[in-house]
Amino acid sequence: MESSLDSTQMDIAGSGLPLPTLPPIAQPGDALAQVDTPALVVDLDIFEDNLRLMQDWAVRHRVSLRPHGKAHKCPEVALRQVAQGARGICVQKVSEALPFLAAGIRDIHVSNEVVGEPKLTLLACIARQARVSVCVDNLANVAELSRVATAQGVRLDVLIEIDVGQGRCGVASPTAALELARRVESLPGLRFAGLQAYQGSLQHLRGHTERATACREAAARAAQCARAFREHGYACAIISGGGTGTAEFDAPGRVYTELQAGSYPFMDVDYGENEWAGELSFRNSLFLLSTVMSTPAADRVIVDAGLKSTTVECGLPRVHGRTGLKYAAANDEHGVVRLAAGAVAPALGEKLLLVPSHCDPTFNLHDQLVAMRNGVVEGVWAISGRGHSR
Amino acid sequence: MESSLDSTQMDIAGSGLPLPTLPPIAQPGDALAQVDTPALVVDLDIFEDNLRLMQDWAVRHRVSLRPHGKAHKCPEVALRQVAQGARGICVQKVSEALPFLAAGIRDIHVSNEVVGEPKLTLLACIARQARVSVCVDNLANVAELSRVATAQGVRLDVLIEIDVGQGRCGVASPTAALELARRVESLPGLRFAGLQAYQGSLQHLRGHTERATACREAAARAAQCARAFREHGYACAIISGGGTGTAEFDAPGRVYTELQAGSYPFMDVDYGENEWAGELSFRNSLFLLSTVMSTPAADRVIVDAGLKSTTVECGLPRVHGRTGLKYAAANDEHGVVRLAAGAVAPALGEKLLLVPSHCDPTFNLHDQLVAMRNGVVEGVWAISGRGHSR
Repeated sequence: MESSLDSTQMDIAGSGLPLPTLPPIAQPGDALAQVDTPALVVDLDIFEDNLRLMQDWAVRHRVSLRPHGKAHKCPEVALRQVAQGARGICVQKVSEALPFLAAGIRDIHVSNEVVGEPKLTLLACIARQARVSVCVDNLANVAELSRVATAQGVRLDVLIEIDVGQGRCGVASPTAALELARRVESLPGLRFAGLQAYQGSLQHLRGHTERATACREAAARAAQCARAFREHGYACAIISGGGTGTAEFDAPGRVYTELQAGSYPFMDVDYGENEWAGELSFRNSLFLLSTVMSTPAADRVIVDAGLKSTTVECGLPRVHGRTGLKYAAANDEHGVVRLAAGAVAPALGEKLLLVPSHCDPTFNLHDQLVAMRNGVVEGVWAISGRGHSR
Repeated sequence: MESSLDSTQMDIAGSGLPLPTLPPIAQPGDALAQVDTPALVVDLDIFEDNLRLMQDWAVRHRVSLRPHGKAHKCPEVALRQVAQGARGICVQKVSEALPFLAAGIRDIHVSNEVVGEPKLTLLACIARQARVSVCVDNLANVAELSRVATAQGVRLDVLIEIDVGQGRCGVASPTAALELARRVESLPGLRFAGLQAYQGSLQHLRGHTERATACREAAARAAQCARAFREHGYACAIISGGGTGTAEFDAPGRVYTELQAGSYPFMDVDYGENEWAGELSFRNSLFLLSTVMSTPAADRVIVDAGLKSTTVECGLPRVHGRTGLKYAAANDEHGVVRLAAGAVAPALGEKLLLVPSHCDPTFNLHDQLVAMRNGVVEGVWAISGRGHSR
């Protein structure tokens, strides 16, 4: 019973038949019901509205929009953002820049520190073909950046990352930031370009007023640093920061020159929990299409999308457009959907749309984004940056 | 400021230089410090000990071992499990079977219901080249299975999934299970092969005694169903179930004929929290290698591995082999590591090993597994089933 593969299996193995392959997840012209599952799906009309809304907001407040590619890792999305007026893109990891570079994006900000020889060399190689900026918060790292930039014959723009309350990377004081800027300016291959002042934890402060107040405080810290820089003869051409949750306050605040928002084209359950009282309110365009693959009891059905199709660190996904259905538990490959009393039970094989709770890591689970308009597939876009975490 | 790509970028774009490519994450012979990060790493000595321990346990108790490929999605791992005596593998999704089939595995159990035309057709195509079994819990689904099996000229082995307490898929009563078996036997292209009785939520019951008791109860429900089947003339050749946390009790219990354990070659923080009081105790072989990419304060460093490199639904990863260091928060691409008073602070660029909290979904974030022995890279294994969730 505990033997290795038996002889029948070996016979089959030697059959010489061609191996089956996975059919396409969807094809242009398909209806939603024809899309295989689990599938990440975007509603293009809403997506395009969201793109326009943020771009118009940036134009109106005279800041650049540099959308974050980490959110979607999808060159087709980035190309549409740039076509609409975005200055370029952000990435969070060096390797993440590669698919965007291959797609023709030529202005890339790595909104993060880059440490270690393979990553530094890759960064410098990318800078041979694009304007590249990168963050620093460490003097030794500045010297390393200069060394690889010089070796590759490129120039890297450098933003000093300052901590405006996030408590993650970045230096805490204007003095430390100035010391970094001086080091940058003193070394070949580098150009001091400004500051990065991103405060991620503000993005999901729920209350509108609470978020506005916190944004002002973070921006005040960035402004204080920029003032110190001016007093010492350093002009901050770029002050980069802001996200989907704070762009409403960051853009008109006259501190930031550039917005790094990422999630606004798509949104998710977590962003949906924010109070959106102002002019800048985005709609959800991103869905996870799932199939009911078991109907074992009157009060629950099981869908084929679990932890490997949508992440849950910001809560569970929500069932879209069906009353009385609640996604109640995520297992690795299953979702348990509870039915309230009186809810219409979905049938075996029926498809349910879910709203992911956190769009960024959910994109990172999928290789393709099915782009739909009015219920019909318009294209299938490669999420080519998926897994590019180096 | 809000303009599209400027003229400088266009010049660079037209340079005609070859695009940079991502260097290999590691090469055979590399030391751990040379592996690029984030990287999923396995210690082969411990991994092989774990494989042997579970296989020996199955042999000793005369049950088949059919390890779950969903845990690792890596054909190189599955081939080693089969070489050691595993009967074949389990997969949870049809598409997940493809890389294992391509690697030569010819006995595949889909431990799940399969619903919808594209998936059913793929399942039947795979059955042309392998012995394939699948679970059912719905009469209409049985008819669909028969239709595609007949169309493809194959035979599918069918296990009736019974719910032994998980509250997910599966039928609740022996009567419903028998009705399904009769339907299976009545239709062409299908063969009734037995029962699946998996209870996932028992795997992580912490107390050894508590787990033993719960396993006995679940097994008793499976045994009761098998008895009803015998009384109606149906022999259950296979009763499949069990996992890493319950194999200790399931194997000697004389109910299960086949163990579906998945995590035992690797383990994780969550399984480490179980009380392992018996003979079957596995050691952690799986690590996430990260790099310290910022050292902003005396009490914290930032590593380059966050939510896109390790999932957190079962808690945060743990820092391995360093005292006073705690992985305290996971952002999308960052991990915040807190230093206790007096802890030796890791330097910028230093590498830290983390123990993932939940191995299955963490494998699903990576394309490669770096296989190491005594601190030296022996090979880089493709996680070819990564993202195969259809």
